[in-house]
Amino acid sequence: MHAISILEPGGPEALSWREAPDPVPGPGEVIIDVAATAVNRADVLQRLGFYPPPEGAPEYPGLEASGTIGAVGRDVDDWAPGDEVCALLSGGGYAERVAVARELLLPVPEGTSVVEAAALPEVVCTVWSNVFMIAGLRPGERFLVHGGGSGIGTMAIQLAKQRGAEVTCTVGTEEKARRCVELGADHTVNYRTEDFVRAGEFDVILDNMGAKYLDRNITALAPGGRLVVIGMQGGTRAELDLGKLLGKRASVHATSLRSRPLEERAAIVASVRENVWPLLEAGTVRPVIDRVLPLPQAGEAHRIMESSGHFGKILLKTGES
Amino acid sequence: MHAISILEPGGPEALSWREAPDPVPGPGEVIIDVAATAVNRADVLQRLGFYPPPEGAPEYPGLEASGTIGAVGRDVDDWAPGDEVCALLSGGGYAERVAVARELLLPVPEGTSVVEAAALPEVVCTVWSNVFMIAGLRPGERFLVHGGGSGIGTMAIQLAKQRGAEVTCTVGTEEKARRCVELGADHTVNYRTEDFVRAGEFDVILDNMGAKYLDRNITALAPGGRLVVIGMQGGTRAELDLGKLLGKRASVHATSLRSRPLEERAAIVASVRENVWPLLEAGTVRPVIDRVLPLPQAGEAHRIMESSGHFGKILLKTGES
Repeated sequence: MHAISILEPGGPEALSWREAPDPVPGPGEVIIDVAATAVNRADVLQRLGFYPPPEGAPEYPGLEASGTIGAVGRDVDDWAPGDEVCALLSGGGYAERVAVARELLLPVPEGTSVVEAAALPEVVCTVWSNVFMIAGLRPGERFLVHGGGSGIGTMAIQLAKQRGAEVTCTVGTEEKARRCVELGADHTVNYRTEDFVRAGEFDVILDNMGAKYLDRNITALAPGGRLVVIGMQGGTRAELDLGKLLGKRASVHATSLRSRPLEERAAIVASVRENVWPLLEAGTVRPVIDRVLPLPQAGEAHRIMESSGHFGKILLKTGES
Repeated sequence: MHAISILEPGGPEALSWREAPDPVPGPGEVIIDVAATAVNRADVLQRLGFYPPPEGAPEYPGLEASGTIGAVGRDVDDWAPGDEVCALLSGGGYAERVAVARELLLPVPEGTSVVEAAALPEVVCTVWSNVFMIAGLRPGERFLVHGGGSGIGTMAIQLAKQRGAEVTCTVGTEEKARRCVELGADHTVNYRTEDFVRAGEFDVILDNMGAKYLDRNITALAPGGRLVVIGMQGGTRAELDLGKLLGKRASVHATSLRSRPLEERAAIVASVRENVWPLLEAGTVRPVIDRVLPLPQAGEAHRIMESSGHFGKILLKTGES
């Protein structure tokens, strides 16, 4: 098969479409003949050398993929060759074939194409696990997501709205603001011209900026508020005012999906299938796709993500799809 | 009646036993004829002027009391004059009488005297709400409590042990270490001679030091760990390494019981009555009482607490008990 290798840590040109050994399914694993994968910020970090794959994960980037099951290993009785699926991966999605544990598979939702389904696993599992399973966002609560136009943002807006929350997001352009409102956002804040702290207080904040926003995020929390940090695009170390946190009886959570043990990721996938898949099949929540490029052009896809010019997910499809 | 007034913020001598107006029960409130109250760190902060009572709370210190119901207001049908009770207060326990919402009352547990019961509400509600309701300590998990010899510490050790956790506490003397082991602690760390970070990793940490321990507490957390900060004896502002927190998928919670809305405190009291009261009545968990002083000697009790010479709770009893 072919896969995108990282020749050495560096710019987008470090991504190279090369021959690679075919994956072999272990017990409880299946092989997906990949139709499409999607670009995540974590892939950019991995390309730069900052986010090595966890032990046992494929060395190629790619935290999600969709396609058709090509083979199943021992002890797999719930999936069969020919099934159309998408999957949460700990790496290896930027390839023509990838091995994945059966617990991390999801069916392609009715009404979604197999290529589009590549936009779902990482954002849906990330939003569901952090906003609902960890932060416990409840109907009527106020929710803020930073980067409303990102893949995570576009899914967080829709899911939070579906669950009855009042949704605010930050955006970098008026065009993105308009599109976030179309997805269901009640309020938008252009972070280039406004301070989100002035936009009110929030019960749950989903943050990708880390240190840069830590203090302002805590200022923006309501009593009993929960801040969940899933990215550190604004650095990792910042002063925490515990007095302010205690005065609000608030909490700061920081998580990463990829490093979780298999059983935790499996529990998230199961909860997503139960709670979010019906919304996708009903069409009330949908993947937001910025564009689809051929997988060998992964470098170009990274350039687009790094310039933040996209809205929603950037997909990479193989020649077969 | 008489109560302990804070003449002006300052040392223990600021506490003065004075005549004070009798409290009047509002709708849904009862008046407790106080048998005893107990000293908490928060009372010391209040005496120093750093922790003003929340709006609507009595101005006198005292976050818990026990005694006999002397009168009931309108809309109180579950308690009657003559009932022996203890209660979680938002202030006013250092007095001969105090008004409190019926939802914050607990019966004096069988086998506990009415004076001893004053040692229970604040520590039991604090430990239960933070360690179990917020941090969700599970059987088999590793639990660390700082200040094992404090009122909070002595209750946290017992409850965590009863719930099947492996318990470690920090202490300042070998004598306190010995007594914490008697209460059920599996391991003790003398913070004067050892670094608790070397004592292993912990799923839940209950902390009263705030800034001074923040980074080391996070270092000591296991993957998926929860740090709950309930005191800031070591300051309020410290650098937080979000990268370290994210690498562990950990969380930092900071809470205060007193500032919570009545309905949240009521829910905690109800959960405590259901889950902890049976353990007290069975004798498997008990209040640990350092000494009992007359309420007019509240200043002396504060001196003892500030010198950290105590083990367990310092109680203050009225002339009537």
